[in-house]
Amino acid sequence: MVDINKSIESLNWTKEPKGLYEPIAYTLASGGKRLRPQLALIGARMFGGNEEEVLPAALALEVFHNFTLLHDDVMDRAEVRRGRPTVHVKWDDNTAILSGDQMLIEAYQLLSRVPESKLPQVFRWFNKMATGICEGQQYDMEFEHRNHVSLEDYMKMIELKTSVLLANALRTGGFIAGANEAQQEALYQFGLHIGLAFQIQDDILDVYGDPKTFGKAIGGDICCNKKTALLLTALEKADPATKAELQQWLLVHDRNEEKIAAVTALYNRLGVRGEVEKIMEKHTSIALSQLNLLPQNDAAEQLRKLAEKLANRKS
Amino acid sequence: MVDINKSIESLNWTKEPKGLYEPIAYTLASGGKRLRPQLALIGARMFGGNEEEVLPAALALEVFHNFTLLHDDVMDRAEVRRGRPTVHVKWDDNTAILSGDQMLIEAYQLLSRVPESKLPQVFRWFNKMATGICEGQQYDMEFEHRNHVSLEDYMKMIELKTSVLLANALRTGGFIAGANEAQQEALYQFGLHIGLAFQIQDDILDVYGDPKTFGKAIGGDICCNKKTALLLTALEKADPATKAELQQWLLVHDRNEEKIAAVTALYNRLGVRGEVEKIMEKHTSIALSQLNLLPQNDAAEQLRKLAEKLANRKS
Repeated sequence: MVDINKSIESLNWTKEPKGLYEPIAYTLASGGKRLRPQLALIGARMFGGNEEEVLPAALALEVFHNFTLLHDDVMDRAEVRRGRPTVHVKWDDNTAILSGDQMLIEAYQLLSRVPESKLPQVFRWFNKMATGICEGQQYDMEFEHRNHVSLEDYMKMIELKTSVLLANALRTGGFIAGANEAQQEALYQFGLHIGLAFQIQDDILDVYGDPKTFGKAIGGDICCNKKTALLLTALEKADPATKAELQQWLLVHDRNEEKIAAVTALYNRLGVRGEVEKIMEKHTSIALSQLNLLPQNDAAEQLRKLAEKLANRKS
Repeated sequence: MVDINKSIESLNWTKEPKGLYEPIAYTLASGGKRLRPQLALIGARMFGGNEEEVLPAALALEVFHNFTLLHDDVMDRAEVRRGRPTVHVKWDDNTAILSGDQMLIEAYQLLSRVPESKLPQVFRWFNKMATGICEGQQYDMEFEHRNHVSLEDYMKMIELKTSVLLANALRTGGFIAGANEAQQEALYQFGLHIGLAFQIQDDILDVYGDPKTFGKAIGGDICCNKKTALLLTALEKADPATKAELQQWLLVHDRNEEKIAAVTALYNRLGVRGEVEKIMEKHTSIALSQLNLLPQNDAAEQLRKLAEKLANRKS
């Protein structure tokens, strides 16, 4: 079985100019779950594909994902990623911009190694996915400053920003290994809905996670008024008085502990957690239903376990 | 004959989210010489190619070029481009970063429309070119802060930053239209050397151009100690005393008029202009010699005129 971390290490990042390539090596060495290339490989295994043949596309998706993190961290002024200083902190903004650009080009360079007969389709899908992710990031930045964001807007944004990459990873792996069109679509839908469920679970854990296992401080989203599935559901469900109370708390920018407790209490009163869990379960179940359209083998079993693990995760 | 400006306009930039696509439309509408797509079209015409077939690659190169300008302007903190505020000034840094990323993806989206039988090669070349340009920009930024830069280092940098794009435009156009390998290489070399000659001419005009026709203030490179072909040649040619005198002037950051006059006088004393013109002429002549390897038709004549025009230009 292919070792994704070793494959990434074996790409040559010791090239000149070091100022361009060292930040790329640093970013890619910081680990992460390697979920996207894993999904591409699972998609390929499901159809008896040759892993070596799918590997370039799988790595292209991982390098692309890391490129988005690098540039997003500049835009969000994030200082830490996976426990280490971000590139624009360790180096500077210009380095983060240019090394990020080169990472995007490296992703395409890996993609160009896809078998030629499959390349045009894989390339078009990749471009569409990449466009979706930039659009998602743009909406995410706009939502911060927008007064009204509907839950529907939010779902569209997380679909673009998170889900299309997971969906495309599975579909691309399956396609290269010979999946037919219906199967490609089922893989895509599985990835899309598992991504939505994953992101919603993230929102829930931020408020209701166990501080011991969650890994981040509880209530971070509440403090910074992040427009999450919980907040948007609360704003949509609340009667005028409760809504006014919630909006009062959104104006508070200190007294964090008090704010977290008060907003959580409001969520509880409105039954927001149950509502949002229902949405998450809906997407998990749509994802799982796609498996019926796919070969019933070990790879499908792996996807089923992944869906269940994501839905029940504590961190 | 294809109208490049109209073709660029006809790409759809009125899509949502506007915050992502408007800066792209703004950047592409600012004009410029459209030299790169023109070169791709000339390369195709030389081999009787169908212009419509080459157009997507030609536009991909132009969109890519404009993407590099957009991100370079952020990195260089440039405030004006083609007489208009740059994107990071008119909008902000985050917009410039993200819209730039999307422009790079749009370039690849255009590239994916290249005829499928030609796509793998065109795609690999494009990636190699894009990598060269990022490396060139990295060297350019590093040179600003580096004490010693040789003329050879400088020539390598401008080859990467400017020439490989012109070279690849010509080669890609010719290749799609059916040029054989030797012809592809001749087109590439023509573009490479014409690019070097162009950049060196730029350095010369900054000091010796006619203020009435040059369009920029004379001596701008001298004021900011830009490591140009003139300065690096002067530093390499000068005897120790003259070199010390020149280095003294590099420490002066006010008295611009006096500095320009003094450094120009030093260049004159060292005969730097003649030396650098020789380098420029060498590259123009290498470029022109490639034409002997190519079909002698109208397209070749156009390239000859272009080379002569670039070598004799006043602005």
